[in-house]
Amino acid sequence: MEVRLLRHTPEPELLVASAAKLCYSKVGIEDITKNLSRKKQNEFIKKLLKMGHLSPFEHISFTFGIEGISRACTHQLVRHRIASFSQQSQRYVSFEKEEYIVPRTIKKGLKTKFERLAEDSLKFYQELIEEGVPQEDARYILPQAFCTKIVVTMNARELFHFFNLRCCNRAQWEIRQMAEAMLVEAKKIAPNIFMKAGAPCVQGACPEGELSCGRPKRRHLTAS
Amino acid sequence: MEVRLLRHTPEPELLVASAAKLCYSKVGIEDITKNLSRKKQNEFIKKLLKMGHLSPFEHISFTFGIEGISRACTHQLVRHRIASFSQQSQRYVSFEKEEYIVPRTIKKGLKTKFERLAEDSLKFYQELIEEGVPQEDARYILPQAFCTKIVVTMNARELFHFFNLRCCNRAQWEIRQMAEAMLVEAKKIAPNIFMKAGAPCVQGACPEGELSCGRPKRRHLTAS
Amino acid sequence: MEVRLLRHTPEPELLVASAAKLCYSKVGIEDITKNLSRKKQNEFIKKLLKMGHLSPFEHISFTFGIEGISRACTHQLVRHRIASFSQQSQRYVSFEKEEYIVPRTIKKGLKTKFERLAEDSLKFYQELIEEGVPQEDARYILPQAFCTKIVVTMNARELFHFFNLRCCNRAQWEIRQMAEAMLVEAKKIAPNIFMKAGAPCVQGACPEGELSCGRPKRRHLTAS
Amino acid sequence: MEVRLLRHTPEPELLVASAAKLCYSKVGIEDITKNLSRKKQNEFIKKLLKMGHLSPFEHISFTFGIEGISRACTHQLVRHRIASFSQQSQRYVSFEKEEYIVPRTIKKGLKTKFERLAEDSLKFYQELIEEGVPQEDARYILPQAFCTKIVVTMNARELFHFFNLRCCNRAQWEIRQMAEAMLVEAKKIAPNIFMKAGAPCVQGACPEGELSCGRPKRRHLTAS
Repeated sequence: MEVRLLRHTPEPELLVASAAKLCYSKVGIEDITKNLSRKKQNEFIKKLLKMGHLSPFEHISFTFGIEGISRACTHQLVRHRIASFSQQSQRYVSFEKEEYIVPRTIKKGLKTKFERLAEDSLKFYQELIEEGVPQEDARYILPQAFCTKIVVTMNARELFHFFNLRCCNRAQWEIRQMAEAMLVEAKKIAPNIFMKAGAPCVQGACPEGELSCGRPKRRHLTAS
Repeated sequence: MEVRLLRHTPEPELLVASAAKLCYSKVGIEDITKNLSRKKQNEFIKKLLKMGHLSPFEHISFTFGIEGISRACTHQLVRHRIASFSQQSQRYVSFEKEEYIVPRTIKKGLKTKFERLAEDSLKFYQELIEEGVPQEDARYILPQAFCTKIVVTMNARELFHFFNLRCCNRAQWEIRQMAEAMLVEAKKIAPNIFMKAGAPCVQGACPEGELSCGRPKRRHLTAS
Repeated sequence: MEVRLLRHTPEPELLVASAAKLCYSKVGIEDITKNLSRKKQNEFIKKLLKMGHLSPFEHISFTFGIEGISRACTHQLVRHRIASFSQQSQRYVSFEKEEYIVPRTIKKGLKTKFERLAEDSLKFYQELIEEGVPQEDARYILPQAFCTKIVVTMNARELFHFFNLRCCNRAQWEIRQMAEAMLVEAKKIAPNIFMKAGAPCVQGACPEGELSCGRPKRRHLTAS
Repeated sequence: MEVRLLRHTPEPELLVASAAKLCYSKVGIEDITKNLSRKKQNEFIKKLLKMGHLSPFEHISFTFGIEGISRACTHQLVRHRIASFSQQSQRYVSFEKEEYIVPRTIKKGLKTKFERLAEDSLKFYQELIEEGVPQEDARYILPQAFCTKIVVTMNARELFHFFNLRCCNRAQWEIRQMAEAMLVEAKKIAPNIFMKAGAPCVQGACPEGELSCGRPKRRHLTAS
C-alpha cells in the first residue's frame, strides 16, 4: 500500500483560524489573516475543537493518491459521501500484473493456495479479453483482493470523522492501515488540527464500550 | 436480480406540488395540500420539470430493496453520494450458496470455466473460514461476480440524476438493468414525476454526441 | 409559530429495523420486514443507537411545514445541508399582513417602539412596490423579524444531529422552539427512534462543559 | 461589495488532469502528475467538460472572503449545500456602522426615506442593546439590507453549478454580482477550467426558453 498526500490547501491552520475569527469579531475580510501568530492560531484551533465548532475546518482540504489497496477496501472507502474520488476504471483499464492483497491471517499452505487461485483468475481474465469479452465483463472473475488506485479528497472536518471510524481497532484492517497512513501525512501539514484525530479512544471514551476491541483499558487512559 | 420498492413517501405527487405552491403563493401551511386536484398537481409538476426547478422533488423519497446483484455493481452504486445505503456485510455474514453473476458476453466453454473458477473460489473461501480465517479476510478470494443485497433510499431529484446516468446505454449493463427496474417501480407510484426520467436521450439530445452509444438516431427523436 | 408534520415514511421503525437486519443476517429482501415484532424492532433500534450505527436511520424521512417564524430563524435553519427546503419566496410573493416576531426580551415601551418601526417598514415596503420597485428589492427594508413559511424534509439521522444542536439551551431561542416542536411531532410517530433525541445533555454529558448554559447539574443527571 | 479569493488548491488544472488520467490509464500515483504539459492538461480538461465527466473537478477547491453583501443575499447563498461557510455572527458581533445595501431601483426621495428608516433601525438596535436586550434579539429589527461578512469554500464542480444558476440574468441582482466577481477570480487561477463557466446561455441554450430573461437572442448565439 502506498499513500501520498498529493495536494492540500496552503497554510491550512491559518485559514481555519481566520475563518473562525471572522465569525466572532468585527474584523474585515482584508485583515482576517493578519495578526494571527502561530500561537494565536493554535489557541483558536484548540478552542474550536474543544467546543465542537467544526465548520471552519471544512475550508481546508487534502488530496491523497493511494495505490496497492484492494477493491474490497475501496468498496468501503467510497461509502464516505462527503468526499471526492477518482478511481482507476476496471472498464477502461485492463489488468496485467498480479497485484492483489493476501490478508496476513492467510498463511503457509493456505497462502500458496490463495495465490494460485488469484493467478488462475488473472489468467482466465486475460483469456476472456483475448476471446473478445469486454474488460468490464471479464473483471467479474477477479477476486476482491485485486488492487486498484484512487485519488481521494476530503476536507479536514470529514477527515476527523473518517479517522474516527477507520483508525479504530474495530475497523477492517486494510482500511485502518490506509487511514493511519493518511493521518500521518495530514499531521505533518497541520499538526495542531490533527493532534487528537483518530479513533474515539484517543480523545476519551470508546462509544462502543471500553473493551469492545480488546485494547487494554490503561492504554485508553494514557493515549490522550 | 430482484428489485423491490419497499417504501416511499405517501402521495408523493401531492407533496411535491404542495411544496412548490408554497414557494410561489400566499397560501398557509394548513392549506398547501388543499385544492390541488390531480390535474393541478400535474400542471405544477410539468412546469417545475420544464423550468428545472427541482428542489421540491427532494421532499419525496423511495426505498428499494435489491438482491442478486454483484459486488462489482454495488461498488458503482455506492458512489452515488446523495443516497442512503444498508448493505449486507461480508464481515458479519458468510457466504454459503453459489450466488454470482455471469455476464452474458461470457458463453459456452468460457461460461463453464467461469463457473468452475467461481465455485472453486467459494469452496476455498469456506475452507479458509473452517481453518479459522476471519470472514472479512476470507472474502478477499471471492470474485467480484458474487452477489450482495442492499437497501437504497434516494429522493426523487437524486433519482432523476441516477436514472440519467445509469439508464444510459453507456452505463455498465448490470447497473443499467438495476436502474431500469427501479425506474419501472418509481413510475408506478409517481407517473407524472418520472414520465421523462431516464437517459438524457429520452428528453432530448445526448450530451456525449448523438451516436456515442450506437443507438440509431431516429429512436432518439421519437423516444420522448 | 406553527409546526406541522406533513408527511413521513410509513412504518418508520419497521423500515429502520429491517435495513439493519439485512446488514447482519442472511435474510433475503422479501423477508426483511417479516418476523419483526414491535419488541424486536425496539431491540434493534436500541442496539443501533447504542453502537452509534446510524446509517439505517437515513432510510426514513420527515417533512415538516413551518410558518410564523422569522427570516432570522430560517437563515440559521437553511445552514443545515443534509436537508431539503422549499421556502416562500420574497421575490415572487409580496407581504401584506404585519407578521413579524418580537423577541420576549423586548418589553413594554421598547416593544411598542419595535412594533411601530416594523409597521413603518412594512408601509414603506408597500409604498416602494406601488412606486414600481420590484418585490425582490423592496424587501431589503423589511426587518429580519418578518415571518416566512417553509417546508423542510430531513431524514432521521440528520434530525438527530439537528435536535442535538438546536434543542440545546445554547441555541438561539426561536430555532430552539422550532426544533422542540419538531421533536414532539417526530416522537409521536417514532417514539423509540427519537426517545433520546435532543440536546446532548439528554443523553449524557454536555460537550461544552457541564454548566455552560447555566442549567443546573442535577437536571443533567436525571434527564435521561 | 468586496470579493477576494483567499485560498485555492495549488496548481488546480494539473491536479484535475492528473486525477482524470488515473481513471483512464495504467499510470501509477507517483507518476500521475508527470508528463502533463500545459497543453496536455488543457486537452484533458476540455474533454472532461465536453463529456460531462465532472467528478475530477471536485478535487480542487476555492475559498472566497466576501463582505459588503446583505443578509438578504447570504440567505440565498447558504442554500447551496455542497459548500462550506463561516459567517460573521449577529449573535456575537454587534453592529456599529451604517452598512447596508440600497438596491439601485430605489432612487431619489425613496432612497432618502430608505436610508432614514435603515438608520432609525440601527439606532433603535443600539438602544435595545443599551437597555440590556441580547444582540441576538435586538437584531430582529435590522432590515435585511444590512451587511454581513462570510467566508465561502466550494469545489470547482459545485462552482460550475453555482455560476450556472447565479450568473444567470434571472438570478437576483446582488447574488449575481457576487457570483460574477467570484467567477472573475476563479478564471484568473484556472482559466481553462472556468472558460465556459457561467449562465447556461454561455454554453448554449437557455433551459428556461430562449428569451426568458429578455436578453437578445443574437448574444446567446455568439457568447460561446
